[in-house]
Amino acid sequence: MITYTVELGARSYPIYIGNGLLSKGELLEPHVRGRAFIVCAQSIAELHLPALQSALRGIDHDTLLLSDSEQHKNLDTISEIVDALLHQRFDRETTLIALGGGVVGDITGFAAACYQRGVPFIQAPTTLLAQVDSSVGGKTGVNHRLGKNMLGAFHQPRCVIADTDTLQSLPDRELRSGMAEVIKYGLICDAEFFTWLEHNLDPLLARDVGALSHAIARSCANKAQVVADDEHERGRRVILNLGHTFGHAIETETGYQSWTHGEAVAVGMCLAAEFSNRLGWLPQQSVQRAIDLVRRAGLPTAPPPMGADAFLQHMLRDKKTRGDNINLVLLQDIGTAVVTHEYPIAELREMLDRHA
Amino acid sequence: MITYTVELGARSYPIYIGNGLLSKGELLEPHVRGRAFIVCAQSIAELHLPALQSALRGIDHDTLLLSDSEQHKNLDTISEIVDALLHQRFDRETTLIALGGGVVGDITGFAAACYQRGVPFIQAPTTLLAQVDSSVGGKTGVNHRLGKNMLGAFHQPRCVIADTDTLQSLPDRELRSGMAEVIKYGLICDAEFFTWLEHNLDPLLARDVGALSHAIARSCANKAQVVADDEHERGRRVILNLGHTFGHAIETETGYQSWTHGEAVAVGMCLAAEFSNRLGWLPQQSVQRAIDLVRRAGLPTAPPPMGADAFLQHMLRDKKTRGDNINLVLLQDIGTAVVTHEYPIAELREMLDRHA
Repeated sequence: MITYTVELGARSYPIYIGNGLLSKGELLEPHVRGRAFIVCAQSIAELHLPALQSALRGIDHDTLLLSDSEQHKNLDTISEIVDALLHQRFDRETTLIALGGGVVGDITGFAAACYQRGVPFIQAPTTLLAQVDSSVGGKTGVNHRLGKNMLGAFHQPRCVIADTDTLQSLPDRELRSGMAEVIKYGLICDAEFFTWLEHNLDPLLARDVGALSHAIARSCANKAQVVADDEHERGRRVILNLGHTFGHAIETETGYQSWTHGEAVAVGMCLAAEFSNRLGWLPQQSVQRAIDLVRRAGLPTAPPPMGADAFLQHMLRDKKTRGDNINLVLLQDIGTAVVTHEYPIAELREMLDRHA
Repeated sequence: MITYTVELGARSYPIYIGNGLLSKGELLEPHVRGRAFIVCAQSIAELHLPALQSALRGIDHDTLLLSDSEQHKNLDTISEIVDALLHQRFDRETTLIALGGGVVGDITGFAAACYQRGVPFIQAPTTLLAQVDSSVGGKTGVNHRLGKNMLGAFHQPRCVIADTDTLQSLPDRELRSGMAEVIKYGLICDAEFFTWLEHNLDPLLARDVGALSHAIARSCANKAQVVADDEHERGRRVILNLGHTFGHAIETETGYQSWTHGEAVAVGMCLAAEFSNRLGWLPQQSVQRAIDLVRRAGLPTAPPPMGADAFLQHMLRDKKTRGDNINLVLLQDIGTAVVTHEYPIAELREMLDRHA
């Protein structure tokens, strides 16, 4: 087991990474005060809920099963969780535990942030994406019909349990989607890790436990380093959104249905790399390395045929915009990201026109 | 104008108290970055919105009118605010301004806490209750169908504008309801202020500006002192709930309709005083002073005929309970509150039986 500690002063917390962790009561117990309430993704309940429940043997707890589709990530589901908590008289000493992918983690984290103005929670992410993304940063929230993640809160977990056993049963497409975020960390801040990924992509896709554990730990460490002195997303942290502004536009246009988040981000990263090259910042050879790794991971590298207008319209509504400028995360090198709104918009439109 | 600064380190903020403040652009402008979005109570829009809008002359802003009834304090209204913000493309640099009573303040504050994971907000409370209660403490939130304030966040305002002009048009019943919270500060931590209130109740009820300003400033200062080193309500801050556990039970039982919050709290304080006396802590003479001041303020001193069982059941679900104990705020003296769950429950039931 690897333990990586996210340093946040009084709110520091450990991320436990390894095999067979869900059933280890000794990992959970120190972080639970009072009763526990598990919010579990329906799709993985049969496979992984028994392990977590056995870890909670000594603690009074209850479970709510939730759909883990992006469609249900809304205020109605928050209301459903609150209903369940109040019906069972869960009080302010309750710890919420999210068992599932990013959707369940985001919803449960937000419910924990809001329930009675805040109760503790624990993340037990069961997808690669959630393990390398939601484990660090404290972002929680739900979608609104006019945009993704429009309601939310920063709420840090007490601990994160990233059990690599849960990745063995993950559908191939979801594993690959998670790889998009892993590759992202290499691109934005860790050239050495990017090279390691180029050499270790095959064992990763073959779900080698050692390779996965290393990739998860290094991804979390990279994210934690970026987030550490920018907890509330005012500055440097924005680089974590490499590919996301383009990606959200694709997700919004396609109704969060046909594309996974990771696939949309994968395309977004390729577009960001290409645009960086167009602005004269990133050599063509580096663009190619980025696109090659994304392609080798089984991820798409080009957007759906949605048209530049739709692209730009969705991007304008993206929350990373300031006023009417579209802030973009671009690359100066593999391992070096910059945030800028200073570029010719016509150039952006031209590139999108060519693709979409 | 009195300026009272709530000391919260980096999040310290001023409360401006006095006449004609809503129209003073120079008070608002330093606290607004980007665009402004006013959420205004329908009932007072005609009277007070023009003043605030004139103060925002130089700032791009928009307004949403909301019903200010407790019934609308729910997630649907949060969703309505988010709809309006997204439709007008308000981004993360938006400042929300709440103009109205406590309901509008609570809703708007929670919307600000959640919108895009948090934007700044300003409180412009227009009722005495909101001026002495919501101005300090950072509590925001909405009700759930199974309980009051079950969803919320701690979110501090950038400044509070307590314009006493808004109290001149306040319905008598609302002014008196606000007095309940003012009296509460005397009871829990400021015996001198309690005596001042006994001597100045008549000018206060006659809406004398000097008396009102003093009462508001002193109330805010008392609340701020209690909250200062307990921002997240883990300890001493609980004394601010004097009368509230009883009060919430009355509000829940009567469906938040026939009783105002202040009236319910007024009765709650009388019950707390009486129970403190039953436990041998508070002399009968002090109980009488408390009840007399409440009665002179035109507030009720006894609960509706709801029965001890209903009372206890609602109290059990109150969020200030820990496990199965009902935590109560009681009085050792006028100006000295204590929190305890150590008392004979039979004694409590007997008292409630006698009254309800």
